[in-house]
Amino acid sequence: MNQRVFNFNAGPSALPLPVLKIAQKELLSFGKAGMSVLEMSHRDKDFTGILERAEGGLRSLLGIPADYTVLFLGGGASLQFAMVPMNLGAGLPVDLIQTGTWSKKAGEEIAKISQLHIAASTENEQFARLPRMEDIQLNPNAAYVHLCSNNTIEGTQWLSFPATGSTPLVADMSSDILSRKIDVSKFGLIFAGAQKNLGPAGVTVVILRKDLAERASKNIPAILQYRTHMKEPSLYNTPPTFSIYVVALVAEWVKKEGGIAGMEKKNAAKASLLYEEIDRTGFYSCPVPKNDRSKMNVVFRIRGGDEALEEKFTAEAKNKGLVGLKGHRSVGGLRASIYNAQSPAAVKALVSFMRGFEKKNG
Amino acid sequence: MNQRVFNFNAGPSALPLPVLKIAQKELLSFGKAGMSVLEMSHRDKDFTGILERAEGGLRSLLGIPADYTVLFLGGGASLQFAMVPMNLGAGLPVDLIQTGTWSKKAGEEIAKISQLHIAASTENEQFARLPRMEDIQLNPNAAYVHLCSNNTIEGTQWLSFPATGSTPLVADMSSDILSRKIDVSKFGLIFAGAQKNLGPAGVTVVILRKDLAERASKNIPAILQYRTHMKEPSLYNTPPTFSIYVVALVAEWVKKEGGIAGMEKKNAAKASLLYEEIDRTGFYSCPVPKNDRSKMNVVFRIRGGDEALEEKFTAEAKNKGLVGLKGHRSVGGLRASIYNAQSPAAVKALVSFMRGFEKKNG
Repeated sequence: MNQRVFNFNAGPSALPLPVLKIAQKELLSFGKAGMSVLEMSHRDKDFTGILERAEGGLRSLLGIPADYTVLFLGGGASLQFAMVPMNLGAGLPVDLIQTGTWSKKAGEEIAKISQLHIAASTENEQFARLPRMEDIQLNPNAAYVHLCSNNTIEGTQWLSFPATGSTPLVADMSSDILSRKIDVSKFGLIFAGAQKNLGPAGVTVVILRKDLAERASKNIPAILQYRTHMKEPSLYNTPPTFSIYVVALVAEWVKKEGGIAGMEKKNAAKASLLYEEIDRTGFYSCPVPKNDRSKMNVVFRIRGGDEALEEKFTAEAKNKGLVGLKGHRSVGGLRASIYNAQSPAAVKALVSFMRGFEKKNG
Repeated sequence: MNQRVFNFNAGPSALPLPVLKIAQKELLSFGKAGMSVLEMSHRDKDFTGILERAEGGLRSLLGIPADYTVLFLGGGASLQFAMVPMNLGAGLPVDLIQTGTWSKKAGEEIAKISQLHIAASTENEQFARLPRMEDIQLNPNAAYVHLCSNNTIEGTQWLSFPATGSTPLVADMSSDILSRKIDVSKFGLIFAGAQKNLGPAGVTVVILRKDLAERASKNIPAILQYRTHMKEPSLYNTPPTFSIYVVALVAEWVKKEGGIAGMEKKNAAKASLLYEEIDRTGFYSCPVPKNDRSKMNVVFRIRGGDEALEEKFTAEAKNKGLVGLKGHRSVGGLRASIYNAQSPAAVKALVSFMRGFEKKNG
């Protein structure tokens, strides 16, 4: 193979090399099936075995209670922006805690289907911090509360979640699921596009307290009702089989690496290393206050926003095999995504590059 | 690798071995990217290059006119059962030509969103044939006409399509796209789940006459509007990147194998070989009249429906490395799916097995 780079993309993003090696080895023939996972009927026992590995892996890692279903759906997390209000809050008031681009996008869809209420927003501060708990104004009659647990673009992450009482809390965990311990029972619904911490693009995991599925009208298109996918879990229609297979492999890799506790420890160390370098001299800076900083997406600027120097930074980094460091086009600047699969070696290489770049340009 | 079997699954189904070998070779590092396609940002030029190969390949093979968009969407063909009426016919009359399980399922979703009119149906003959052209009663005010070009479960396939005048014809071509020449300009919209003739599960191709996208209300969830996906084609949200990559490889393989003309010739030969064996003595039989027989899914019975003998057939076939020959659970019997990627060698092996099975049990 050609030399592999250090991949800091925000998603799709780096996968564990051992996972890729298994997928490569099994690509022409899986186990004794005599065919690739890419060619396997989704109703064949070889595939339902893979589906069980994926679901079982997530259940065991996250401690998902028995009254929650785990679904593997197509269409991306953006489809969940529509499915959640259609199923859980059609025509009803819904609370949104607006903390960035993705929760705002979710809000646009909620507004089409439900009565949108912004319970808190930091938009007038460019979403550079999270709302304080005491500033969140929840509507006791809301059908549910929506938030995004980690804001990929703005680099913020909830350390603890607001208490919503008996109102179900819905969380978009696309960019930090499996990266730290969470108490699933505190949530009504969790969804996550796989392409950051779970596997490749093409599959979205939905963890749903089963009773909530019954809120949906049966006049919703069948494919958009959670209850449809719960009847014969994830097999109503042909699911994204290969993506699910890679999720199973990733879950098994996480387990081998010490489970969620192992990930959490490794992620904290990687993030510390990087934020320490950013805070060291003032040449680099992070716009996010320390308590709100994401351990998944580290956003930073050079000299408070010197675009020419930032461009030089990404170009030189790329030449040294450090790719995907450009900030999201909507906010500019720099960003290093350091999900579960990102190796400490990659972060060390980045820190070392940053040090050298500062020496030459600082 | 372990020995590969002859895979007659109806979908997901056999892929060309050269395609799998390329995917395997590139799995750890694609070209000079230094990363797997599974890890690649969908906005990176390496991936947009892949997207162009996939779209360009389909455009050139099918001769798709410039006023048609080509989209690669997640969610499966079943999502299109809802998206088509939402976008093209909400609240309006829609004609359905009902020829099997899948068009019937599409009709159930149309009925929720539009005014469903069954323009023709062969349900009272268990869908064992297609309607005659003169029996199709089109509504001149219909927003569109829906049909399924090949019925995977029932083993029927339209040789030519009904003329619908100025009413757009919408075709679910999930199981025969790329298998034969079609005139795309005769259709308003074509959709196809990839997992039969195009590639792996997880991506659905939509070929849409661009003007039709403007019919949709802007109050539909953004992800469910075709116009959303047309603005920056297939990149509104993270698409199923790896599945699209395999579609690009499959399109390139089809081109090498003589394009659509080459596929059509090979498919006709494979189907003839199999139907001739089925018709030879009466031990095997096909319920479908000759003119309506599918070249993709060959359904047949033993002794007109001897279930015990059919079970023996699939079990013995499996032992000889011929798998996926059971008919769909809703109709029983036997079925051999012989899509583009099915090798003539596999069909010859099946015919030889059938001959031997008849000798022993006939």
